[in-house]
Amino acid sequence: MATVKLIEYEEASPEVRAVYDDIMATRKIDWINNFWKAAAVQPELLKRTWEGVKAVTAPGAIDALTKEMIYVAVSVVNGCQYCINSHTASARKKGLTDEMLGELLAVVGMACQTNALVTGLQVELDEVFKNGGRAD
Amino acid sequence: MATVKLIEYEEASPEVRAVYDDIMATRKIDWINNFWKAAAVQPELLKRTWEGVKAVTAPGAIDALTKEMIYVAVSVVNGCQYCINSHTASARKKGLTDEMLGELLAVVGMACQTNALVTGLQVELDEVFKNGGRAD
Amino acid sequence: MATVKLIEYEEASPEVRAVYDDIMATRKIDWINNFWKAAAVQPELLKRTWEGVKAVTAPGAIDALTKEMIYVAVSVVNGCQYCINSHTASARKKGLTDEMLGELLAVVGMACQTNALVTGLQVELDEVFKNGGRAD
Amino acid sequence: MATVKLIEYEEASPEVRAVYDDIMATRKIDWINNFWKAAAVQPELLKRTWEGVKAVTAPGAIDALTKEMIYVAVSVVNGCQYCINSHTASARKKGLTDEMLGELLAVVGMACQTNALVTGLQVELDEVFKNGGRAD
Amino acid sequence: MATVKLIEYEEASPEVRAVYDDIMATRKIDWINNFWKAAAVQPELLKRTWEGVKAVTAPGAIDALTKEMIYVAVSVVNGCQYCINSHTASARKKGLTDEMLGELLAVVGMACQTNALVTGLQVELDEVFKNGGRAD
Amino acid sequence: MATVKLIEYEEASPEVRAVYDDIMATRKIDWINNFWKAAAVQPELLKRTWEGVKAVTAPGAIDALTKEMIYVAVSVVNGCQYCINSHTASARKKGLTDEMLGELLAVVGMACQTNALVTGLQVELDEVFKNGGRAD
Repeated sequence: MATVKLIEYEEASPEVRAVYDDIMATRKIDWINNFWKAAAVQPELLKRTWEGVKAVTAPGAIDALTKEMIYVAVSVVNGCQYCINSHTASARKKGLTDEMLGELLAVVGMACQTNALVTGLQVELDEVFKNGGRAD
Repeated sequence: MATVKLIEYEEASPEVRAVYDDIMATRKIDWINNFWKAAAVQPELLKRTWEGVKAVTAPGAIDALTKEMIYVAVSVVNGCQYCINSHTASARKKGLTDEMLGELLAVVGMACQTNALVTGLQVELDEVFKNGGRAD
Repeated sequence: MATVKLIEYEEASPEVRAVYDDIMATRKIDWINNFWKAAAVQPELLKRTWEGVKAVTAPGAIDALTKEMIYVAVSVVNGCQYCINSHTASARKKGLTDEMLGELLAVVGMACQTNALVTGLQVELDEVFKNGGRAD
Repeated sequence: MATVKLIEYEEASPEVRAVYDDIMATRKIDWINNFWKAAAVQPELLKRTWEGVKAVTAPGAIDALTKEMIYVAVSVVNGCQYCINSHTASARKKGLTDEMLGELLAVVGMACQTNALVTGLQVELDEVFKNGGRAD
Repeated sequence: MATVKLIEYEEASPEVRAVYDDIMATRKIDWINNFWKAAAVQPELLKRTWEGVKAVTAPGAIDALTKEMIYVAVSVVNGCQYCINSHTASARKKGLTDEMLGELLAVVGMACQTNALVTGLQVELDEVFKNGGRAD
Repeated sequence: MATVKLIEYEEASPEVRAVYDDIMATRKIDWINNFWKAAAVQPELLKRTWEGVKAVTAPGAIDALTKEMIYVAVSVVNGCQYCINSHTASARKKGLTDEMLGELLAVVGMACQTNALVTGLQVELDEVFKNGGRAD
């Protein structure tokens, strides 16, 4: 089921349990998904990873649904089946419709295509795009 | 500058010129960036690619800035320097701030990290995430 | 089975059905594979994608079997299980033998190896290879 | 120029020089490109890699130009600038025209797009495609 | 089970059988794993691949366990499920503990994150890091 | 030089300066490399990323040089030029020799090759490798 033993709440150390508690409180759920139970193989890794996920997926200058869509996009390119499914599910809970999912994947697919064409043609960057077009 | 000769407007065939005209009209600009000049090596490819980019980046259920952010995210994972710079520039023109760019890349980076952890741990998908959590 | 509901022919809209009909007519088959049924979540995406696939896999300056082999090669590097299996099957129908498949994958594997070595060693491009060796 | 010192012919050990000689004899050229000079940091690696490249790019059930095209396709997906340029140059010497290059990259781009769509939609493999459609 | 028929020892040609024998002798085991049985579709590929694996995983300037960890790290980034599982198993036999596996994946995940950030920010290489910091 | 303005120490906020100070103290150096100056576009990202890098590269069950080698391996597969150069430089300072670098890249290259072969052949995982061979 994984290359390490999944750590269930009942058998978890206080350090691991504290992270599980925070995950459930933050997400307003009463269970822990397999990823965290596997990451718990190294409590420091579990803690740091959760704090990172919590930090980047909280709404900020970018809203939470958009962040989930970006998470799905990255997971598709990296080919992570678990992450595609779990973050698509998470995005649906935040309002993603089938129509939006279709558009999201259409952008991802088109970006992969043009990335490949640009790379294959070895196109030189236009002066105006240098530094991502920043003004300063 | 590229593995094919860039086709300038002046020397372009009517078919290629029509695409260039549509790019400039759609984007309200008066120049063509290098990618299209290289893709013009095969007019059919140029036309089809432009029509695809035009279709997926037009605002729909997802707004245009969000689509540019997704384009940047994909280009980062694919490591396409040209596309990262050109789409970051394009996103800036549509309102992307430094703060948003920082958040966007923070999500991309975190997604890459958890994609790798999930993959490395070979975590089995939780039942509830199957089919991306769709209800039907 | 997928993160979206598969659209069967019977329940498809006329727009989707027209694409399904063209796929079956072009391929001289009487069924639609799952990819198209999933892409139909967004009819415009379905239509554009099919037109792209139809355009690039038709024989041209490169023959149809070679194009399928290139499709397999790309799918291997991208790690797309569905595409590897479906395009290997398609290539077999166009004449791919076990011997050719072995050679194809041997090239893919060797290319992945030398890509990694060149990248790891950060080798500078020889002058003569610039612009992919084009003469103009 | 590289993360290791390039080994020139004049300073090479007999073992390295023997590989250089075989590269030049096989390719009917009188110089060594930078990749081999860098790989020579570990003579055994140089020798094994050259023997692999020599073996897979020799014509067999698949002709030499097709093999170069597959090499280019893989290098594009892996984003290896050196390999894209050097193998495009090599393919040109074996007959690759601009038209063929356009078609090759069109297939690569489309494959990247459909790879992403299939992965993002998590499409289940059709029964008939299992095992790449092999009959035995 | 694979896109080619697996070649069992009993039905293997003398050339394939010789490789199988060397694998079992080198690894001190009495069975052959599926990868080699599939690679045997092309005996030359089987032989060359085994010789490569044998060469690079033998202890040298880097010890055998470290090499297995590097193999796992690469397989994670490439998303190869078979290789992640088989090389993690192999590493465990050479002494990899859960604690080490956790640390290994923590480095892999963090590297993927910073790779993405550097790429997304298009950071220019510091002078001192050029050529990988080599002195000559 | 980057898609965001690099933040120099002199102009940095106290929060950013505190991270810069910790980087210099931890690494016993008196300068900050460009990556951190770019990541400082979002102070929270800078802080979290540095804490992650500091945590995973500290010696633990795996020694510091091995961790740098794993970092290089991942960066090669992800094609991150900056990270390959900076971590190779860092590894050299921790004792990496040319011989070790050659062996490291030989493993990376071979792993990329077998990853591709396994994926292309769609080899089924042997029972004994399931769950990465763990015993519990």
